[in-house]
Amino acid sequence: MLKLYYAPNTCALAAHIALEDVGANYEAHRLDFNREEQRQADYLAINPKGRVPALSCPEGLLTENPAILAYIAQTHEAANLAPLGDAFAFAKIQAFNNYLASTLHVAHAHGKRAERWADDKAAKKEMYRKMPEIVLSSFLLIEEEMFKGPFVMGEAYTICDPYLFTFARWMEADKVDPDLLPKLRDHRQMMLQRPNVQKIIADELAAI
Amino acid sequence: MLKLYYAPNTCALAAHIALEDVGANYEAHRLDFNREEQRQADYLAINPKGRVPALSCPEGLLTENPAILAYIAQTHEAANLAPLGDAFAFAKIQAFNNYLASTLHVAHAHGKRAERWADDKAAKKEMYRKMPEIVLSSFLLIEEEMFKGPFVMGEAYTICDPYLFTFARWMEADKVDPDLLPKLRDHRQMMLQRPNVQKIIADELAAI
Repeated sequence: MLKLYYAPNTCALAAHIALEDVGANYEAHRLDFNREEQRQADYLAINPKGRVPALSCPEGLLTENPAILAYIAQTHEAANLAPLGDAFAFAKIQAFNNYLASTLHVAHAHGKRAERWADDKAAKKEMYRKMPEIVLSSFLLIEEEMFKGPFVMGEAYTICDPYLFTFARWMEADKVDPDLLPKLRDHRQMMLQRPNVQKIIADELAAI
Repeated sequence: MLKLYYAPNTCALAAHIALEDVGANYEAHRLDFNREEQRQADYLAINPKGRVPALSCPEGLLTENPAILAYIAQTHEAANLAPLGDAFAFAKIQAFNNYLASTLHVAHAHGKRAERWADDKAAKKEMYRKMPEIVLSSFLLIEEEMFKGPFVMGEAYTICDPYLFTFARWMEADKVDPDLLPKLRDHRQMMLQRPNVQKIIADELAAI
């Protein structure tokens, strides 16, 4: 059985939704970030990165959202969450998810997690100040250049959708006006209507 | 034919080596970063991200190293650069390359590209100061937890190797002592012996 390590209001939401979407046989294990459980020895023995998501699989542990999402799609082919037989189309999905991981998420992290890249208080404050500008600029590139609609890759729902949705939920907290991003705003609204999305958000909140 | 957009001394080196490794039918197009060609209108029309690498394929443009590298492996199966038939092993490769893209490369970028995340001069200086510490900590996690040896994934050379090598080349410039990372230091040395690696480095330098 698969086991997802997650914390509420983190990017683990994407994998959590995808597991539900494919009807995976999985359990979800919540970490309490307020108590810094992700940095305690028993979790570091499982995942030395001290982050979520992590997916325990029969063969070992997987980390990094784009890799986990692709694994979920590849091991549940019938759910059709990625164009597995088309190397280029599959790479476009990977490229989209990689952009979320290495640019949009990194931009967002300069808000609450600036201590990763600076110790000085004023420097962290400056990163926090600039964060909304770079988060918006990442979202605008998605809105204008990458997003096809109604789903990220066009007519078909894929592993890009729950991952984009995860960051779109944080727009207001990141001081980004959703009305500047009408396609992404509508996508977020459409995602919120999906029963699996509602179920997983409710499950994560109920576990707190 | 494939066309790789690259600049010397950038992370595009990984894809450049991989294309040579698989014997791809490709051409390489150099961008001059000193003249900021990556931000000029004709390149932005090709790649709105204004970054390298970008790989022009028959079906369209690909960006993001982990996606490009996986595409190269998947479309040149005979070269055996990734365990394509094993979803978990393939995901481990993607997870490794994703870690390089979203953690190690991001750490490195806080040296020379701190303007992405701050405008204030003192804040950028503080990021530059802390950069070697976080680059080292990322390399240590690879050395101690991820790297199998002699190649990244063990006995088989994969698309992880040229990508790791790309960042390992920058250790000294990032003020990281390679002797603190003996496995990665030896891997870098082994990579430097490979004819394709020597050829691509020479080609990139000759084009300047």
